[in-house]
Amino acid sequence: LDEAAMAEARDLQSRLTKPPGALGALEDLSVRLAGLAGTCPPPVPEPAAVAIFAADHGVHAQGVSPWPQEVTAQMVANFLAGGAVVNAFAGQVGAEVTVVDVGVAADLPDAPGLLPRKVAHGTADLTRGPAMTPEQARRAMETGIEVARDLVAAGNRCLLTGDMGIANTTASAALIAAFTGLPPERVTGRGTGIDDATHRHKIEVVRAALDRARPDPADPLRVLAEVGGLEHAALAGFVLGGAAARVPVVLDGVIAGAAALVAAALCPRAVDACVAGHRSAEPGHAVTVEELGLRPLVDLELRLGEGTGALLALPLVQGAVRVLHEVATFDAAGVSDKSGHDRS
Amino acid sequence: LDEAAMAEARDLQSRLTKPPGALGALEDLSVRLAGLAGTCPPPVPEPAAVAIFAADHGVHAQGVSPWPQEVTAQMVANFLAGGAVVNAFAGQVGAEVTVVDVGVAADLPDAPGLLPRKVAHGTADLTRGPAMTPEQARRAMETGIEVARDLVAAGNRCLLTGDMGIANTTASAALIAAFTGLPPERVTGRGTGIDDATHRHKIEVVRAALDRARPDPADPLRVLAEVGGLEHAALAGFVLGGAAARVPVVLDGVIAGAAALVAAALCPRAVDACVAGHRSAEPGHAVTVEELGLRPLVDLELRLGEGTGALLALPLVQGAVRVLHEVATFDAAGVSDKSGHDRS
Repeated sequence: LDEAAMAEARDLQSRLTKPPGALGALEDLSVRLAGLAGTCPPPVPEPAAVAIFAADHGVHAQGVSPWPQEVTAQMVANFLAGGAVVNAFAGQVGAEVTVVDVGVAADLPDAPGLLPRKVAHGTADLTRGPAMTPEQARRAMETGIEVARDLVAAGNRCLLTGDMGIANTTASAALIAAFTGLPPERVTGRGTGIDDATHRHKIEVVRAALDRARPDPADPLRVLAEVGGLEHAALAGFVLGGAAARVPVVLDGVIAGAAALVAAALCPRAVDACVAGHRSAEPGHAVTVEELGLRPLVDLELRLGEGTGALLALPLVQGAVRVLHEVATFDAAGVSDKSGHDRS
Repeated sequence: LDEAAMAEARDLQSRLTKPPGALGALEDLSVRLAGLAGTCPPPVPEPAAVAIFAADHGVHAQGVSPWPQEVTAQMVANFLAGGAVVNAFAGQVGAEVTVVDVGVAADLPDAPGLLPRKVAHGTADLTRGPAMTPEQARRAMETGIEVARDLVAAGNRCLLTGDMGIANTTASAALIAAFTGLPPERVTGRGTGIDDATHRHKIEVVRAALDRARPDPADPLRVLAEVGGLEHAALAGFVLGGAAARVPVVLDGVIAGAAALVAAALCPRAVDACVAGHRSAEPGHAVTVEELGLRPLVDLELRLGEGTGALLALPLVQGAVRVLHEVATFDAAGVSDKSGHDRS
């Protein structure tokens, strides 16, 4: 973060026609985004693009989700047809939707809006062995870096994370446990909404994965390959790619958060580019945003994924920056300041 | 609220391609807005208009704010010039801004975008006598009803509350104390950001007003006239007018909340139309939204007013309803449901 640009943003905020600090967390955000861009005001983060990384999970065979695995591919088709919640929210806030097949089990037909970047037909079952080979993890991560780079090259000034993958909250819980050191029961949630018995089983599945892999957070790529998903790898790369381009990356929920932990372990400064779009209903997500040191912008018990929570936060991020571009100073507007002295 | 439309919205939510309940508080909101409109799906709440009711306060003479009273008129000029935060946020989310002079102390020149509806040159000092005559309170409230009616007649499908008035958090605290029964120290905040000594003094000013007026919440119009402001009266009318038109009214912060308490005391069903845009940093606001039974959509320690918190919530309200219009059902999209049975 560029300290000079941040100081300039703080000074500008203090001269705008509003009580100092009255925009709360959005003032802090505007200062950080100035630091990220290295200039004040930073560019308004638009146009914006959400990339939905889709992949399947071998751990699905352990019965961690009531949804059949083919729903991943079916939802990809739904995204491409414009029929999912992510499409409705993207339309509402004016963001472009890109879907990336980074590891869906089924072979998908070519379609406009779908980037075919399949690294594998889903991961292996993380309770029985590594979910990915190191090579697969590396390739999926590179895919994410490239998608971020290409979206920025196409003119986007804000990236949003999206994800789709039945059973991906199980892999997310394993990653979060590995990086935070918290026990599986603290970080494993109900995902799409599972019953008590399935939830207890899911916790034991996460515990079994950790017992098998003994992940060392000092070796983040190995942690990722052992217990992560292909979309987690791609999302970690997406965060790194956005940060390298100094473009804000609005994180969605627990899957993006788990991936951001990987990115942060590889490159702590990547978190400078991250904005926590929301706090989801998943218990692992609250501890993840805390670990990342981020403040979620929206907190409405969403637990959908797809990028929906990030999209709802987008107008808040854009509004926070727009203030620095458009709001008049006390001097320019002829508004008296607190002391009662008209400075115009 | 129309129970049949709400049942239809609940049923539709359960058939959309997402896990049941995954949109959290936004699903509840979509159901309530269907009940308000009496149809499912309810109209998408756009276009939207924010009405900024501006007025001055005789209690300013008691030294409750470090800002000179003329800032109210100066900020009105700033709104009309497009230089305030409310303008930046309105531009971001695509809302129209209307400014209503319902009681600014200064005489304001005619200007495009300004509705001249001055009921008085500010209120009287509420520590010494009633802030308004009953006739003034009634006229200001009628102004709010008419502004809501006219904005809906002009095609708006969503109303947002805005306010401007130096010292209006003092009157808000008195109204909130009167309607909730809470002591002044629980509901009196720092407004634009006052120091400890001024804050202590402000609490005593609120206490003095309540001791003098002995407001009876069973007589809401008298409470309003005794300790309210002209913008509070207009905002209460604005809420009633929106509710009568069955159009959602997104409330901003503590001033709108205090006014909504007046509206709710006059007509409890008016709250059905209210959406709490955000929870502000003012302590009186948290208890107010609780009293109204509303769940704030944004919670970022904003304390600016003008309508800024309501505007940030607008895309969330619109997104919640848009889901009911645009998202495919499991059947239509050919997505398998939880049981694994493909229903298409």
